[in-house]
Amino acid sequence: MNANPILVEALRGGITESFHRGAWAVVDAAGHVVARGGDIDRPVFPRSSVKVLQALPLVASGAAERFHLTDEQLALACASHNGEPAHVATARAMLQQAGLDEQALECGTHWPYRENFQREMAQRGETPGPLHNNCSGKHSGFVCLGCLMAEGQDRRAFLRGYVKPDHPVMREVSAALQAATGWDLSRSAVGTDGCSIPTHAIPLRHLAHAFARVGSGVGLSEGHARAAKRLRAAVAKAPFMVAGTGRFDTRVMERLGERVFCKVGAEGFYCAAFPEAGLGVALKMDDGNNARACEVAMAALIDRHVRLDEGERAFVQGLANLPLVNWNGIVVGRLRAAEAGFSG
Amino acid sequence: MNANPILVEALRGGITESFHRGAWAVVDAAGHVVARGGDIDRPVFPRSSVKVLQALPLVASGAAERFHLTDEQLALACASHNGEPAHVATARAMLQQAGLDEQALECGTHWPYRENFQREMAQRGETPGPLHNNCSGKHSGFVCLGCLMAEGQDRRAFLRGYVKPDHPVMREVSAALQAATGWDLSRSAVGTDGCSIPTHAIPLRHLAHAFARVGSGVGLSEGHARAAKRLRAAVAKAPFMVAGTGRFDTRVMERLGERVFCKVGAEGFYCAAFPEAGLGVALKMDDGNNARACEVAMAALIDRHVRLDEGERAFVQGLANLPLVNWNGIVVGRLRAAEAGFSG
Repeated sequence: MNANPILVEALRGGITESFHRGAWAVVDAAGHVVARGGDIDRPVFPRSSVKVLQALPLVASGAAERFHLTDEQLALACASHNGEPAHVATARAMLQQAGLDEQALECGTHWPYRENFQREMAQRGETPGPLHNNCSGKHSGFVCLGCLMAEGQDRRAFLRGYVKPDHPVMREVSAALQAATGWDLSRSAVGTDGCSIPTHAIPLRHLAHAFARVGSGVGLSEGHARAAKRLRAAVAKAPFMVAGTGRFDTRVMERLGERVFCKVGAEGFYCAAFPEAGLGVALKMDDGNNARACEVAMAALIDRHVRLDEGERAFVQGLANLPLVNWNGIVVGRLRAAEAGFSG
Repeated sequence: MNANPILVEALRGGITESFHRGAWAVVDAAGHVVARGGDIDRPVFPRSSVKVLQALPLVASGAAERFHLTDEQLALACASHNGEPAHVATARAMLQQAGLDEQALECGTHWPYRENFQREMAQRGETPGPLHNNCSGKHSGFVCLGCLMAEGQDRRAFLRGYVKPDHPVMREVSAALQAATGWDLSRSAVGTDGCSIPTHAIPLRHLAHAFARVGSGVGLSEGHARAAKRLRAAVAKAPFMVAGTGRFDTRVMERLGERVFCKVGAEGFYCAAFPEAGLGVALKMDDGNNARACEVAMAALIDRHVRLDEGERAFVQGLANLPLVNWNGIVVGRLRAAEAGFSG
């Protein structure tokens, strides 16, 4: 196996201290690979980076309309959020609008990933529930979809086990993923995600193609094309909901609006649509390093493939070349995109 | 540049989801490379993995004796600790025995790395000070050394700036590092560490040799050999102090006693002495991934190079092959040492 290229370097004392390898594909809506690095044909788990694809049935089915979901709520359905009070309240409201509560969620419970929000909760004497799970918005969307599908039946009984691959809700979700990527999901591995739903191994080439479709509507069913447009608009209007305070996805979409839809996933995954450029992107860091490496790599791809004015370019390039600061506030190095890794 | 071998794999759904490359050397006290993987001649920053080398002057100078440092305190001088109450109290006592307090520390302040200890502090309404810094024991050792060196002078004035490369304290510390590794520190890069002291780039081959010397005393000055023995014994008696609750280094040394002295460093570094086997080890993960990858790799090296009984072998192999568990407690994969990476 050839090693994937080095995409991100951590510098200290004038040398490269650590580095991150990975692979990435930039693809247009016709499926043409516009640029690439490393192995883009090995099936890999996209994890949470495909939440917008998994939310297509929520809108296309009419469930979002039936339960009067707002922009904030639709953005949260595509989110890996911080578990901040506004995220928790928004997920709770989604469930209430469908006549349910957090008892319906099967995502499991964890403390917010960001330490300061953990400490704030601990200081208030709070402990987390399933609404704090970074996937609670996605799961609330699944529950809303299930409530629509269950009409005429006992909703709670129908919903039980909605995270399982063969549940009617998850079959809808997987069908949307297969349609958007054009990848036969039965061909490759299935894993269980952090929140217990299946994650399907799909090549970067096909994931990038799916995001070019999400950005353009080309190659999607009419229902999914409308749903993709609605979800992109919702996230552009409420980018706080898709991640939260200080997070890359929120900051980028607050600044660049509908020109970029980007979404991180666990284990160093990223997918993005650049609708104005007609491109989709998928990126996987070999080592599964999340915030540090894959955000820098995504910034490098935005810099190269999205129309930016001078101020926006400085903003994006700042995200691709960060100071590393120690406990005394001294700049001890830099974390930056490796030019050669993005020349492909 | 040839890529370093894959040392650790994260498996999910029957496939390799992520993987970590790195390099490692196992060297005897004569400097002979017994086993190796990847590039062991590129100078790299060992970060906190060499704290025991940096503590040699504390003991060799007589400062440890002068200030009546206990086993717990000497272990803490070699530690990257959790900032648990016992660690904080032990660092405070070291400074008090030298007639000083935390005002003398120049390591900077951070919340304990482990989230549960952050939350416990937040719940108690506490905020961290320099004693909570994972390096506060090492720095308290530097302060004790400086107090001895300053005799007859104003200690506080003498100590100011002890983290700088040209301060008399840091010159002693760097000289010990150079003597143990046999590497001319003026030949390669110098970075600034998280706690603001210099970190010197040294090849893995030389770092492993230094740890074989620490384990055997061979090739060290008489004073450093005695100091190394004293520090190893202290850590074996008080392994909680070198890391803390649930931490790899503490668990391994609690179980294996003086057969293993191992110490993690930032950016995926590990050094170890296997004194009974007469070997030293140095390991660096390319991607700088800390807890996850380098601990698994270190467990694989202990498994191969340390005499273990059946129960100990099961314990060590369990650290080299861990279940990955999701937010519902479901085992979704494994993190394990890649056999081929350790066959060199």
